[in-house]
Amino acid sequence: MSDKPVFLYDTTLRDGTQGEGFQLSGLDKLRIAIRLDEFGVDYIEGGWPGSNPKDVEFFQEAKKLELKHAKLAAFGSTRRANTAVEDDPQVALLLAAETPVVTIFGKSWELQVTEVLRTTIEENQAMIRDTVAHLVQNGREVIYDAEHFFDGYKDGPEHALSTLIAAAEGGASCLVLCDTNGGTLPSEIEKICSVVKARIPDTPFGIHTHNDCELGVANAIAAVRAGAKQVQGTINGYGERTGNCNLTSVIPILQLKLGLDVVPQLENLRDLSYFVDDISNNPHFARAAFIGRTAFAHKGGMHVNAVQKLARSYEHIVPESVGNSQNILVSELSGQSNILIKAEQLGIPLEKGSSEASAVLRRVKELEHDGYSFESASGSLELLILKELERYTKPFTLNEYHTSFRQYRDGHPPVCEATVKLEVNGTPELTVAEGKGVLNALDLALRKALLPFYPQIANVSLLDYKVRILEGRDATASITRVLIVSTDGEKTWSTIGVSDNIIEASWLALTDGIDLFLQGVTRLE
Amino acid sequence: MSDKPVFLYDTTLRDGTQGEGFQLSGLDKLRIAIRLDEFGVDYIEGGWPGSNPKDVEFFQEAKKLELKHAKLAAFGSTRRANTAVEDDPQVALLLAAETPVVTIFGKSWELQVTEVLRTTIEENQAMIRDTVAHLVQNGREVIYDAEHFFDGYKDGPEHALSTLIAAAEGGASCLVLCDTNGGTLPSEIEKICSVVKARIPDTPFGIHTHNDCELGVANAIAAVRAGAKQVQGTINGYGERTGNCNLTSVIPILQLKLGLDVVPQLENLRDLSYFVDDISNNPHFARAAFIGRTAFAHKGGMHVNAVQKLARSYEHIVPESVGNSQNILVSELSGQSNILIKAEQLGIPLEKGSSEASAVLRRVKELEHDGYSFESASGSLELLILKELERYTKPFTLNEYHTSFRQYRDGHPPVCEATVKLEVNGTPELTVAEGKGVLNALDLALRKALLPFYPQIANVSLLDYKVRILEGRDATASITRVLIVSTDGEKTWSTIGVSDNIIEASWLALTDGIDLFLQGVTRLE
Repeated sequence: MSDKPVFLYDTTLRDGTQGEGFQLSGLDKLRIAIRLDEFGVDYIEGGWPGSNPKDVEFFQEAKKLELKHAKLAAFGSTRRANTAVEDDPQVALLLAAETPVVTIFGKSWELQVTEVLRTTIEENQAMIRDTVAHLVQNGREVIYDAEHFFDGYKDGPEHALSTLIAAAEGGASCLVLCDTNGGTLPSEIEKICSVVKARIPDTPFGIHTHNDCELGVANAIAAVRAGAKQVQGTINGYGERTGNCNLTSVIPILQLKLGLDVVPQLENLRDLSYFVDDISNNPHFARAAFIGRTAFAHKGGMHVNAVQKLARSYEHIVPESVGNSQNILVSELSGQSNILIKAEQLGIPLEKGSSEASAVLRRVKELEHDGYSFESASGSLELLILKELERYTKPFTLNEYHTSFRQYRDGHPPVCEATVKLEVNGTPELTVAEGKGVLNALDLALRKALLPFYPQIANVSLLDYKVRILEGRDATASITRVLIVSTDGEKTWSTIGVSDNIIEASWLALTDGIDLFLQGVTRLE
Repeated sequence: MSDKPVFLYDTTLRDGTQGEGFQLSGLDKLRIAIRLDEFGVDYIEGGWPGSNPKDVEFFQEAKKLELKHAKLAAFGSTRRANTAVEDDPQVALLLAAETPVVTIFGKSWELQVTEVLRTTIEENQAMIRDTVAHLVQNGREVIYDAEHFFDGYKDGPEHALSTLIAAAEGGASCLVLCDTNGGTLPSEIEKICSVVKARIPDTPFGIHTHNDCELGVANAIAAVRAGAKQVQGTINGYGERTGNCNLTSVIPILQLKLGLDVVPQLENLRDLSYFVDDISNNPHFARAAFIGRTAFAHKGGMHVNAVQKLARSYEHIVPESVGNSQNILVSELSGQSNILIKAEQLGIPLEKGSSEASAVLRRVKELEHDGYSFESASGSLELLILKELERYTKPFTLNEYHTSFRQYRDGHPPVCEATVKLEVNGTPELTVAEGKGVLNALDLALRKALLPFYPQIANVSLLDYKVRILEGRDATASITRVLIVSTDGEKTWSTIGVSDNIIEASWLALTDGIDLFLQGVTRLE
């Protein structure tokens, strides 16, 4: 811990998953860890081995990861009261995780020691010191999280400081001051951090904040101003209650506002944010600072006019520096610009102000009104542009499809079947297939029907399938949006289907994917 | 402006409506104004008469409101360059709105004066001074919004201060310093506000911030620390781009953390927040500070345990002080404590450490490993506890079900059908129903089969249906989680189903809902 102005410690995989509605499978965790490493985060806290089997499993798999930059951390607690650290099974599991870094938390608030832990001040200090020392002796870098530090300090500063000193004596590399309840104000954070720095000058300190007062980011920045060398947080601020310090906001503030180089490619920030939302199947928060969909959206006519004269008028940073872009909401002309840029990216240039561009824009707006969203379905947008430009050839005509699902309770496995009835150049085909689910059966039946005409379709398969119900009030009238990612082994493309019936929505997304492939113009997104 | 420590200025109806997705009709605006007044806000900015006909109409209607506490403000701009203020039609409309307060904005940033307004420094100062003076002469309290004040100050402090002095000379009651682009840090805000206070001691100053760095609330609090007497913001932080300073967070910080009495009944805060969401048809942000659904939700088992021993452990304020309440989530991270509390709330007390409690916990963890989540499915959890306690009676035995969906392309509407084959006390039933979708057809067929045995089932219907795909890598092997909310017209209860097949997952959630109802133990969640 020496060569960077501030180190980034991500706890999306641990504290993040304590938030309601934020669940990750073992595979999800591995995928996010890889992305965090690529982005340049310094520490990745993977979980608490021993708190649940999923985390033990994660650390088994994580050993195989070849991280380029980040160090993996296992999280846990100090040894139990009145137990030798060597005999504590939880501490043993922390070592068994075989991570280069172990982060342990201990109690700094006297009230917590006596009321929750129900032990003595001296034993609590020994628990901290012993556990840190034991892990250090076993070759680990040990980060100490001082839980409730600020509340503890306000109740009794000397007791709170004594717990930090115990961790420093044990050999901790960093003392992380936690505003566990999120109730501390930035001015208090700054003042208390300054005291810690003065009293314990030889061990660096870090900051771990929560957003209970909507001050999680401000509190982290206040600590950095007071000399914090490590900032803990989560992507998009996921976490217990109102969430953790939002790294997605802290990182650009550190880099762009305070001039501290913390990541090599800040322009990947927006993608990382969306990636974590997508993986956890959470909706993107449109108003999120820096990377939100509306973060650089201008609606007021006056603002739009001024932004056109001088972007700095209403933009505090260059949107592209975090991977975002300016978005002018009301102007028909600027709406066209977005489509033109997208078409250009797809290699189908449209002329600005042309009737084709207007027609495409009109169609996009109609579909968006119906619940379509082309942000993560470029494949369907491409197909739409081709159709409007009359550069589209219909590969088949569907007459009918049918799906059937029969579930037994006598041990017989369920049977899922689909039939597809279509024509290619006037030649009819009627096929049937069984599959593992409705979409799978439809996919197999459709490809069976098309294979005689288009043998190259054998290479296409589905990579991903996401369902979102858009309106939840009336169960029978809700709109379903299905997103599918297809691949031919080299390229991938994404398509969308929207309907009040989930099977039809799935069918539309599925056939768009096949259709685009058959246009011979699919490309990597 | 003298008898309160800090005055609250709400601009939800004006700056709020510049946010994407936040639209209000004239009636909506009136209803929100009444609620804001009841809550104890000091100023309500209603709109910009002259910017659009809706705002002119609003002020016509608003004259009839009998506000108990708040003063209504019309918002507008200074006179145009090189025009006598008496001849400026926009200024005339501000007077025609007949509000006790008029708020006008002017330019503080030299760059904006020369590049956007395209006039001279001197004329800009005259525009500010003349307009304020004219409105004051017409009996209005005039608040001056210094647009881009902080950016302007950083570019040229003397110019920025000169525009405030012009407004003070004109007779403004308050000089509001605006961080229009939201790019300023709290430390800068505090420093610059202190300079303003020292240089212009005889006119109070206020603060207007935006959330572009996720620092809108922190910046407002920093200004109050430096002496600001007015805070401008919006309910739930709605507004242009990432939104305005969130009053829903600032108000409890002022009142509970800084001890400044700003509203008479803080416990109405949560209701006000939900009211504005509902009126504007926006989803509630679950993680919102203070008033969010999960703001006092505890998921980690350790946290739950500690919260029971001592609520202060993980709650920085008493949730009820802002109208919120504690919420214990049941999840894979939970220990026995969560289950025990939930069981207690459900009226089925379990003894801590008992074999029943362990069995329930084990079963919950197994199911969570398979993709279940009981956080928003208390009904299924209740059923699970009843089963483990052997207090469960099986209302029917399913033998088989079947669904079929046929989609045509010749204009014939799709046909969705379900059959259910079950037994009640040895009596077989085979029923079939058509529905609008698979779930609807299954629901109808199931209830048709059960109705002869359980006539009270006629009162049960589905309120909500949510689908989530848990793993996206392999489309055919992904796990689907279905959440259903059922009602009998009085009580509502929520249930969950998980399967690798969406139809089976829907069936499981559906039958859990019916099953729980038939146990006669359903209750309000």
